[in-house]
Amino acid sequence: MEFAKPLPEYLVKRYQGWKATTYAENKSWYKRLAEDGQHPRAMVISCCDSRVHVTSIFGADQGEFFIHRNIANLVPAYAADGKQHGTSATVEYAVTALKVAHIVVLGHSSCGGVQGCFDMCEGHAPELDEKTSFVGRWMDILRPGYERLAPGEPKDRLRALEKEAVLVSLENLMTFPFVKSAVEDGMLSLHGLWNHIGEGSLECYDPGAKAFVAV
Amino acid sequence: MEFAKPLPEYLVKRYQGWKATTYAENKSWYKRLAEDGQHPRAMVISCCDSRVHVTSIFGADQGEFFIHRNIANLVPAYAADGKQHGTSATVEYAVTALKVAHIVVLGHSSCGGVQGCFDMCEGHAPELDEKTSFVGRWMDILRPGYERLAPGEPKDRLRALEKEAVLVSLENLMTFPFVKSAVEDGMLSLHGLWNHIGEGSLECYDPGAKAFVAV
Amino acid sequence: MEFAKPLPEYLVKRYQGWKATTYAENKSWYKRLAEDGQHPRAMVISCCDSRVHVTSIFGADQGEFFIHRNIANLVPAYAADGKQHGTSATVEYAVTALKVAHIVVLGHSSCGGVQGCFDMCEGHAPELDEKTSFVGRWMDILRPGYERLAPGEPKDRLRALEKEAVLVSLENLMTFPFVKSAVEDGMLSLHGLWNHIGEGSLECYDPGAKAFVAV
Amino acid sequence: MEFAKPLPEYLVKRYQGWKATTYAENKSWYKRLAEDGQHPRAMVISCCDSRVHVTSIFGADQGEFFIHRNIANLVPAYAADGKQHGTSATVEYAVTALKVAHIVVLGHSSCGGVQGCFDMCEGHAPELDEKTSFVGRWMDILRPGYERLAPGEPKDRLRALEKEAVLVSLENLMTFPFVKSAVEDGMLSLHGLWNHIGEGSLECYDPGAKAFVAV
Repeated sequence: MEFAKPLPEYLVKRYQGWKATTYAENKSWYKRLAEDGQHPRAMVISCCDSRVHVTSIFGADQGEFFIHRNIANLVPAYAADGKQHGTSATVEYAVTALKVAHIVVLGHSSCGGVQGCFDMCEGHAPELDEKTSFVGRWMDILRPGYERLAPGEPKDRLRALEKEAVLVSLENLMTFPFVKSAVEDGMLSLHGLWNHIGEGSLECYDPGAKAFVAV
Repeated sequence: MEFAKPLPEYLVKRYQGWKATTYAENKSWYKRLAEDGQHPRAMVISCCDSRVHVTSIFGADQGEFFIHRNIANLVPAYAADGKQHGTSATVEYAVTALKVAHIVVLGHSSCGGVQGCFDMCEGHAPELDEKTSFVGRWMDILRPGYERLAPGEPKDRLRALEKEAVLVSLENLMTFPFVKSAVEDGMLSLHGLWNHIGEGSLECYDPGAKAFVAV
Repeated sequence: MEFAKPLPEYLVKRYQGWKATTYAENKSWYKRLAEDGQHPRAMVISCCDSRVHVTSIFGADQGEFFIHRNIANLVPAYAADGKQHGTSATVEYAVTALKVAHIVVLGHSSCGGVQGCFDMCEGHAPELDEKTSFVGRWMDILRPGYERLAPGEPKDRLRALEKEAVLVSLENLMTFPFVKSAVEDGMLSLHGLWNHIGEGSLECYDPGAKAFVAV
Repeated sequence: MEFAKPLPEYLVKRYQGWKATTYAENKSWYKRLAEDGQHPRAMVISCCDSRVHVTSIFGADQGEFFIHRNIANLVPAYAADGKQHGTSATVEYAVTALKVAHIVVLGHSSCGGVQGCFDMCEGHAPELDEKTSFVGRWMDILRPGYERLAPGEPKDRLRALEKEAVLVSLENLMTFPFVKSAVEDGMLSLHGLWNHIGEGSLECYDPGAKAFVAV
């Protein structure tokens, strides 16, 4: 572990500033959270992309959202095969231990992971087809979304695939027995969102319209 | 997909407030980010826990950190077996595509995932031993950390295990060839942090002291 | 060049300390910055005054702000006359080459340049009226700000002139065609700040209030 | 002025953190600085480049360095023609009003301005030759440095030109009568530095060696 490095000074300074302001002003709340544990009302599944800030968009404070972030906000289908499934573990913990009331899947524009999947499926990214490509194998989850894209201009199909990443994840969530039963019991609701980073717009999947509509 | 629900009204209201204020004030930055793509300087791997807010602690804005969040901020060892490894995909993307300069693993106090691992290893959580337990199988990653805990009071051992979750992840990161070579080339540095939620304190792993020390 | 002198020892010592600590801890980031180039999100125009530290106030690290510093944080009006305009060159580079999203003009209390302009305009500093006075001719940029000062006590008028130095610069920035079009396209936003050095306070120009208000 | 925007929230947060920590801890010093005025011991002329942090490299606090930053850390030759010369005004103020003891010209690697000058002089950047190019006209200051480059590989000549930007500025500083007399009176010394951003190395011009040598 001799490779581990100290925290860069500018982050130390910023942390100290946070401690003296945000923390100091909210100390009682942080102490409560530490003693009573978390009771988040929602789980959010979003992308790792540095441009996506779900806590900012929804004005969320500590304790409000249980947040899983991975490449392209994907949830794989249920597979209780005894293997390591990090995303499935987050869903299991949120629904069975924390009993969240909502799961929000948040997609976004200009997603590098979705772009990679698109290129791979079009045959333009052989390196992602390699067995050793972690990104490629992870993006396989989205292949069913690619298969059902309507014909059209590449940029329109790519945009549609970003939204499919949300829909595929919602569908896969329902393959988890504990998710399905909680939804059917009215204890859990699922929501699909897509954020345009440059425009700051937000769209929500509307099952009536079978489309994403502006919030 | 008839199960998908509209966004709860209170989140719609908050989003609209964000759009009219934070977005409006930073519109030019979001547009730039959308056009030019992200150039985050660091990847942060933290827990899904709703009480951990890395962007708040470090005063980070959109575009600054590439953030992966999973149960107990764990990174599995490298395994290019062609299977789905969501966490490994995030590390691969951060290091090989985005070329981040830092990876920060951020652990925290009162971690439910670490508690589960501790109970499981102590023989008090048979349900986590089940093949079908996603959380249990995910927490297997931390077993080597449990094995090397010093004897002591359970609460001290549990606290030590929270920090082991950071160390095991740092060790596993170094098993990825592209991480190891970037670290050795001086292009990437790894940092281990642990946050006490109630106290608002932050500790950084110091290889000289072989311990976490207050920032 | 026989007049050039070695670096004073105390600066050599400090540099060596920085190299062994801050640089060593951030080596990977500096290497990335050197290889990939800078992508600053904002340009800051502040005074040369040794008491103004924009990177400290905003916890900024290398790579974050493109910083121009001159006497009294002034920007002259656009004049494409083929002459040397150092400040105009910085604005041109920031907006057209780096495509920054924000330009922040940061004024401050007790500004020697603004004091000189005030004295000159009041007729108390004939030496600054000389053709050969570089400071006097530079401070001519602020004369329109002096002209619109409200009557009052000299110290209040001087304080007002410090803020006019920010406003005149913001107005002059908009005379640059590439600034104006970027602002109108929503790709660039301009901000006016004023820092009270002794109090550590910060005020931001609020177009609604037509005044600087505390941040 | 209706175009002026509020300060982005993340900068407000960071400022508040600074106020509660760095400012609070140094309040007495800031108040002294505000009341007694600045007495900087040195002037630093460096590039606007976001990767150059002279206060960090030299561990400087508020009040220590009077800092002018422009494109490529250039100083034009003395020209008392009654026109606006922003850089000359900073030198005049530093030497005649503040009576600094040192002027340090700090160049750096990968300088975009120097690259532009190199391309322009090689005939590869006609847009910089335009009368309307502020960057081009500003970089004309460095043309004498280009003229005396030794033949060689383009990348070696470019590196040499970065150092010429320091030497040309030192030479031009000596054309200012008040600089020359202060140097000759032993009241002021001039120093030429060059910083390699990626390596964190620093070189100082040594008139004996007629070369930049490692500090």
